[in-house]
Amino acid sequence: MNISGTFGFHELTNSSETRLSLEDLFRKDFVLHDPEARWINDTDVVYKSEDGHVIKLNIETNATTLLLENTTFVTFKASRHSVSPDLKYVLLAYDVKQIFHYSYTASYVIYNIHTREVWELNPPEVEDSVLQYAAWGVQGQQLIYIFENNIYYQPDIKSSSLRLTSSGKEEIIFNGIADWLYEEELLHSHIAHWWSPDGERLAFLMINDSLVPSMVIPRFTGALYPKGKQYPYPKAGQVNPTIKLYVVNLYGPTHTLELMPPDSFKSREYYITMVKWVSNTKTVVRWLNRPQNISILTVCETTTGACSRKYEMTSDTWLPKQNEEPVFSRDGSKFFMTVPVKQGGRGEFHHIAMFLIQSKSEQITVRHLTSGNWEVIKILAYDETTQKIYFLSTESSPRGRQLYSASTEGLLNRQCISCNFMKEQCTYFDASFSPMNQHFLLFCEGPRVPVVSLHKTDNSAQYFILESNSMLKEAILKKKIVKPEIKILHIDDYELPLQLSFPKDFMDRNQYALLLIMDEEPGGQLVTDKFHIDWDSVLTDTDNVIVARFDGRGSGFQGLKILQEIHRRLGSVEVKDQVTAVKFLLKEPYIDSKRLSIFGKGYGGYIASMILKSDEKLFKCGSVVAPITDMKLYASAFSERYLGMPSKEESTYQAASVLHNIHGLKEENILIIHGTADTKIHFQHSAELIKHLIKAGVNYTMQVYPDEGHNVSEKSKYHLYSTILKFFSDCLKEEISVLPQEPEEDE
Amino acid sequence: MNISGTFGFHELTNSSETRLSLEDLFRKDFVLHDPEARWINDTDVVYKSEDGHVIKLNIETNATTLLLENTTFVTFKASRHSVSPDLKYVLLAYDVKQIFHYSYTASYVIYNIHTREVWELNPPEVEDSVLQYAAWGVQGQQLIYIFENNIYYQPDIKSSSLRLTSSGKEEIIFNGIADWLYEEELLHSHIAHWWSPDGERLAFLMINDSLVPSMVIPRFTGALYPKGKQYPYPKAGQVNPTIKLYVVNLYGPTHTLELMPPDSFKSREYYITMVKWVSNTKTVVRWLNRPQNISILTVCETTTGACSRKYEMTSDTWLPKQNEEPVFSRDGSKFFMTVPVKQGGRGEFHHIAMFLIQSKSEQITVRHLTSGNWEVIKILAYDETTQKIYFLSTESSPRGRQLYSASTEGLLNRQCISCNFMKEQCTYFDASFSPMNQHFLLFCEGPRVPVVSLHKTDNSAQYFILESNSMLKEAILKKKIVKPEIKILHIDDYELPLQLSFPKDFMDRNQYALLLIMDEEPGGQLVTDKFHIDWDSVLTDTDNVIVARFDGRGSGFQGLKILQEIHRRLGSVEVKDQVTAVKFLLKEPYIDSKRLSIFGKGYGGYIASMILKSDEKLFKCGSVVAPITDMKLYASAFSERYLGMPSKEESTYQAASVLHNIHGLKEENILIIHGTADTKIHFQHSAELIKHLIKAGVNYTMQVYPDEGHNVSEKSKYHLYSTILKFFSDCLKEEISVLPQEPEEDE
Repeated sequence: MNISGTFGFHELTNSSETRLSLEDLFRKDFVLHDPEARWINDTDVVYKSEDGHVIKLNIETNATTLLLENTTFVTFKASRHSVSPDLKYVLLAYDVKQIFHYSYTASYVIYNIHTREVWELNPPEVEDSVLQYAAWGVQGQQLIYIFENNIYYQPDIKSSSLRLTSSGKEEIIFNGIADWLYEEELLHSHIAHWWSPDGERLAFLMINDSLVPSMVIPRFTGALYPKGKQYPYPKAGQVNPTIKLYVVNLYGPTHTLELMPPDSFKSREYYITMVKWVSNTKTVVRWLNRPQNISILTVCETTTGACSRKYEMTSDTWLPKQNEEPVFSRDGSKFFMTVPVKQGGRGEFHHIAMFLIQSKSEQITVRHLTSGNWEVIKILAYDETTQKIYFLSTESSPRGRQLYSASTEGLLNRQCISCNFMKEQCTYFDASFSPMNQHFLLFCEGPRVPVVSLHKTDNSAQYFILESNSMLKEAILKKKIVKPEIKILHIDDYELPLQLSFPKDFMDRNQYALLLIMDEEPGGQLVTDKFHIDWDSVLTDTDNVIVARFDGRGSGFQGLKILQEIHRRLGSVEVKDQVTAVKFLLKEPYIDSKRLSIFGKGYGGYIASMILKSDEKLFKCGSVVAPITDMKLYASAFSERYLGMPSKEESTYQAASVLHNIHGLKEENILIIHGTADTKIHFQHSAELIKHLIKAGVNYTMQVYPDEGHNVSEKSKYHLYSTILKFFSDCLKEEISVLPQEPEEDE
Repeated sequence: MNISGTFGFHELTNSSETRLSLEDLFRKDFVLHDPEARWINDTDVVYKSEDGHVIKLNIETNATTLLLENTTFVTFKASRHSVSPDLKYVLLAYDVKQIFHYSYTASYVIYNIHTREVWELNPPEVEDSVLQYAAWGVQGQQLIYIFENNIYYQPDIKSSSLRLTSSGKEEIIFNGIADWLYEEELLHSHIAHWWSPDGERLAFLMINDSLVPSMVIPRFTGALYPKGKQYPYPKAGQVNPTIKLYVVNLYGPTHTLELMPPDSFKSREYYITMVKWVSNTKTVVRWLNRPQNISILTVCETTTGACSRKYEMTSDTWLPKQNEEPVFSRDGSKFFMTVPVKQGGRGEFHHIAMFLIQSKSEQITVRHLTSGNWEVIKILAYDETTQKIYFLSTESSPRGRQLYSASTEGLLNRQCISCNFMKEQCTYFDASFSPMNQHFLLFCEGPRVPVVSLHKTDNSAQYFILESNSMLKEAILKKKIVKPEIKILHIDDYELPLQLSFPKDFMDRNQYALLLIMDEEPGGQLVTDKFHIDWDSVLTDTDNVIVARFDGRGSGFQGLKILQEIHRRLGSVEVKDQVTAVKFLLKEPYIDSKRLSIFGKGYGGYIASMILKSDEKLFKCGSVVAPITDMKLYASAFSERYLGMPSKEESTYQAASVLHNIHGLKEENILIIHGTADTKIHFQHSAELIKHLIKAGVNYTMQVYPDEGHNVSEKSKYHLYSTILKFFSDCLKEEISVLPQEPEEDE
C-alpha cells in the first residue's frame, strides 16, 4: 500500500488529533467559504470576505474598498446580494425560497451604498411583491426582474418599470426564466435571458408548457388544510414544452424579434441549450433535436433575426456538452469550441477546434488546436494580442483539472500555468479571466482545502490569496484523515479508477467493512482530486469503514467512449462495472466480504438499487436517497437521452426499471430515504418501490422527510446524515459471535 | 397466579402443539366466518354457509333452501349480496372499492334466483355505472340506489328508476348517504336513509358540505401523473356540514316533506344522530347540538312534518350513546330507552327507562326498569304479549355481555337467558330477535371461538347451531394459547381491569418483556371476554412477551363517570392511568422493567405517544399506527366532544397535542406507521410528528404505506404485522451482556 501524506492529510498518529465526528461537519469552522469573487473590470474584483463584508479589490494597487458591511445583511435579513455595474447600489434579496435546483423566489430591496437609502423593488402597482428573479444589467443601474413569468426592465433605479413581455402565465408560459425541464435538464440554470455586452439588447427564451402534463406535489404540514402544488413536468415520452428565442432592444422604442431555428428543425421538436452574445448585435445559439443526437450551432443577427448555420454535430448515441459556450474573437472572424476528436482505439475525446469564418463566402475552416487521450474541460479565454487560448484540461491526470494556455498559431505550443501552483496540494483548478484577460482568479479546489488566488496573466507565479479557508484548514488538520488511494482497473480495454478512503489506523492484516458510493448523475466523475469531506468521511474515520468510489462506464471526462457505453443500456453496464470493482477489491485480504454496503442518491440510488437487485448478492445492505426507480417516471430530456422514446413494447424501459423483477431485492437490508416534496425525482419513485417491495414481501427501512425536496433543508441535514451513518454503522459492525439464545424454558 | 383452562385455551404442554406464528394468522383455517345471518320473517333466516352458499333456513321445520350457490359469486366476481324481500332476486355487488370506514362504491347486477337471468343496475341513460349504494327496500322487489349523491327508486326490478332527489352534488350535497363526518363520527354508518315498515315512505338526510373545508389526499402510485382526491372534512372548530331530514312518499305522486328540528335548535348548529320509524307514518329522531351536551328526542308525524319533543338530555360533559334507537310498542304509547341513572357514589350507569305517553296530553311518565352498578348495553326487543323487554347488559361482569329479559310490569323480574349457554366458554353475547320475537339468533363472541345459534324465545335452552367455526376451533386448539388473566386495580375509587396474556411456558421466576396495548377509541373497552387472536398473540406465543391491556379512565361500559373523566383532559388522565397500571405490574417479579413497550393505533397511537412523551420514562420502545398527533387536525365532532371548540389561546388543545414539547420523546425507540391515503387520520398527523422529531433531533423508525388508508389493505396486512412484530421482537429481546467492542487498534 502507498499512503502518501499531503497538506491536510496525515499519516502519523498524533495524540492531539481526534476522530472526525458528524458534529464536526456542522461546526462553524468546517464551513467552506465561497468569496463569490467576480471581475467588474480588468483590474477590480468584488468579493465577500470570510466575515461577510462585500469588498472591492484593485489588483494593481491592492487597495480595498468596503462596499457593504456584513451588518447590512442582518438589517435587511438578506441572504443574497449583487452590486450594480456602476458600484453605487446593491440589490439585496430576502425571504429567499428555493423552488427547484437553481431557482428561488425572493423579495428585493435596492440599497444605496453611499446614502444607505433603501427602496423596495416592486412591479408597477404591486406591493410586497415576491419576484422570480431580479438582477442588474451590464451597464450603469439598468436592471430587470421577472414577475408572474413576465420580464420587467428599469433603465435605472429611479425610472419606472417597463414590461417587456405580456404572454407570461404562471406554470404555463415562461419568459426569460426556465421551466422545470430547462432548469434541471437543459440549461442547468433558471436564467433564460442574456444581455448584449452594451446592455442595449436582451435575448430571452419563451418556454410554452401549455400542453405539458403537470405533476402534483402534495403538502402535508404547516396548515390545517395543506394544499399541494402543481407544475409542468414532462416525463419520458410525454409532451415537451415548445420554445422560442426572442431579442428585445431596450434603447428607444422596444421592439421584439424572434430568432428562428434552422430550417431542418422547423417541423421537429427541439431544445435550445445555449445562447451567448458574441457582439453587440450578434448571438450564437445552439439548437438540439429532441432525441439529442443532432445539434446545430447558428450565429444570429439580432437586428434582422437572420440566423446562419455555423456547425452541425451528430451522434449515434447522444451529444454531450451542449451547454458549452464557444469563445469568439472580437471581430467574430473565428471562434473556439471543443469537439470530439478520435484518438485511435480509445475513441473520441473533447479537444479545442478553431473555426475560421471566411468573411465573404461564410465558409468555415476548422483547425484542431489540441489532441491526445485527455479532455479539454472548458475554454476560458482567448487573448487577441498574444493569440493564446486559455483552458482547463485533464492532460496531467483525468482526476485533475489544470489551467493551460496554447498558442493558436504555428506549433500550437501548450503550457501548463497552474501545474506549479502549490504543487501536489493543488491539482484540481478552475479559473476566471478578467474582461481583457490581463488577470485571472485561480480556484484551487483540491485535494487540499480550497484556495482562491489572483494572478497576472503574464506572470502567473506572482499571486495574491483572496481566500485561504484557514479556519477549515486548521480544523481539518486536527482530524485524522488519510489521503485516498487510487487503483486502476482494466475493464474492456478501459482503464478505470477506483478510489479507496482508508481509516486512519488502517492495517492490511485487519479486516474492514466497505461502503461503495455511486455517482449522482451519469457522465459525472467521482474519483477526482477535488477537496471532499462529508458524512462518508465520518464513517471511515469513526466506524473504520473503507469507502470506495469507482468511475466505470458511463462516467465522464475520460473520453466519449467510456461515457456513451451506457446508451440504451442504462442500469446494466454500470451495474456490471461496479460489481467488477467490488470483486476486484474482494481479492484484497483486508476487505471483509461479509460486510459490504452500497450508497447512492438520485441516479446513484437507481444504480445502487439495480446492483442490489442483481443476481450478484455481494452486499449486506444499501441505502438509497431519492432514487429513480423507473425511467418512465423521470424527465423526458434525461430518460430519452439514454433510452430513447418509450415504445409500446417498452422492453428497454422495462429492463432499466428497478420495479421489474423486484424480488431480486429480497436478501439485503435496504434503507430508502425520500423527501415527499421532491420536485426532481418525485416521491412517486420511492412509493412505487415500496409498494412493489410490500407486494413481494421484502423488508426494508425507510425515512421520509415530509415536505422536503430533492436536497433536504439545512435543518434536516443533521438528521439525514445521522440516519445514514447509523444505518451503515449498525449494518457494518463486526458480528460478535454469540450463540443465539433460546427462549427460557423450564429448568 | 391463576391460569384457568377453558375451551380453546390450554394449560398443559402437548407435543403436537406448536407456537402460533404470523403465517398461521393468514391461514385459511384461521379465518373467522361471519354467516351474515338475518331474519326475513318470524321463522326464516337467510345466512351464508361456511362454504359460501346463501341459504334460507326455516327454524320450525329445519328445512333449508339453497338461494344462491357459492359459484355465483365467482361467476360475477361479486363480493357482496343481498336477497330481495320476496326472495326472488339477489343484488350482487362487484368491483367493490372502499371509500371510508363503511362506505364503498360498486357496480351491481340483479340476479333472478329461479331463471338465473341477470340485469345490470344502472341509472337512466347511464352505462357501466358505479353506484354509491344499492339495496332492496322492505317490500317485494322495491329497491333504491344512490348515484352522484342522488337517490333513485325502483318499485320493482322491471320498472324504470325514479330520481327522488336532484340536489345531489359530488362532495358537496349528499342525499341519503353520509359525508365523511356523519359516516365516521356520528352515524357510524354510510347509510343516511330509512324505510318505513310498509315501504311506502323513505326518510333521508340531506347533508350540505358546501362551506366545509376540503382535505386533499395525495396519490403517489399507479399512474405517470397520479391525481389526489379532495373531500370535505371539518377539523376541530371549522365549518360543519348543515343537515336536513326529509321524508318522501313513494306510492302515488312522490312528495317530499322536511321534518323540522326542535325550535330551540333552529338557530343553532346541530347534528342528527338517529332516525327510526316507529310506525308507517311516524319516525323518532334524535337531534344533538354541536357541543354534544344537549340532545332532544322528537317523534315526527311524516304526513304533516310536525315533530313533538319527547325527551331532552343534557350533560356537563358530553352525551354518549346518541345512536341508540328507542324501542317502541306497536301502538306508540310507550317506548324504551337507556338513560343515565345515578348509582350512589359510583356515578351514573345506563339503565332502561320506560316512557309512557299519555294519549291525550302527550305528557310523559318515566319508569326505570333496571338499576345497579352495571350497564345496559342494548335493548333488543319488546314482546307485547309477555310485556317483557330483552336486552344485553354487563350485570354478570363488566367484561361480559349477557342476554337478559325483564318484565316491564310489577316487580320487573329480571332473568338471564344466555348465562347457561356454553357456560364459561361463552360470556360475551349479542342477539338478534325475529320480527315477532318468537325466535332469536344468539351470537357467542367469546371467550371461545365464536358460535352462532338459533333459539326459541320461550325455550332458549333448545337451540340449533348455525355456525360453529369448527375449522378455526380446531386450528386454535393446536396452538399454545393461554387464557388471559385479569387483575383489578384501584385508582381514585375506581376498580379498573388489567388483562395479562401470558406466554405458554410462563413461570413467575423468569423475567419477561411486556407490551402494553392502547385502545383505538375513547369510550371503548379492551379488557373483555371477546374472542381475540391477532399479531399480539404471536408476540406472546413466539417471543415470550406478556401482553397487557388496561381499561383506565376514559374507557366505556363501566358507568359514565369513568368514561367522562377525560372531558377537557384528553391525553392526560389516560396517560396517568396507563402509567399507574405499568407501575403496578413492575411490582411483579416476572416483569423485566428494562423491556417495556407500548402500542397504539389512531387515538391509541395518540395515547401511546403522549405516554412516551411524558416524564415517566418507563418504556424502551413504542409503535404507533396512524396516530392522532394534534386534536386540532382531527374531526370536529370528535375533538370538540372531548375538548370543546378550539379557542384563541388554545391551551386545552396545546396541552393535548403530541407536537407540543416534543423533546419529551427523546429517549425511546419509536416506530411510526401510517398510510399516506388515510382519510380518517390524515398522514398529516405523522408528517407533523416527524417534522417535529427531526427538528428536535429525535430518532425514530418509520413505515409508510403508499396510497393505503386507515386500515391497510389485505395485501399489505402481512407486511404490516411482520413490521410491527419484528420491531417489538428486536426491541424486547433479552440483552446479551457482551462488552462493547472497541474498534481494532494497532496491536
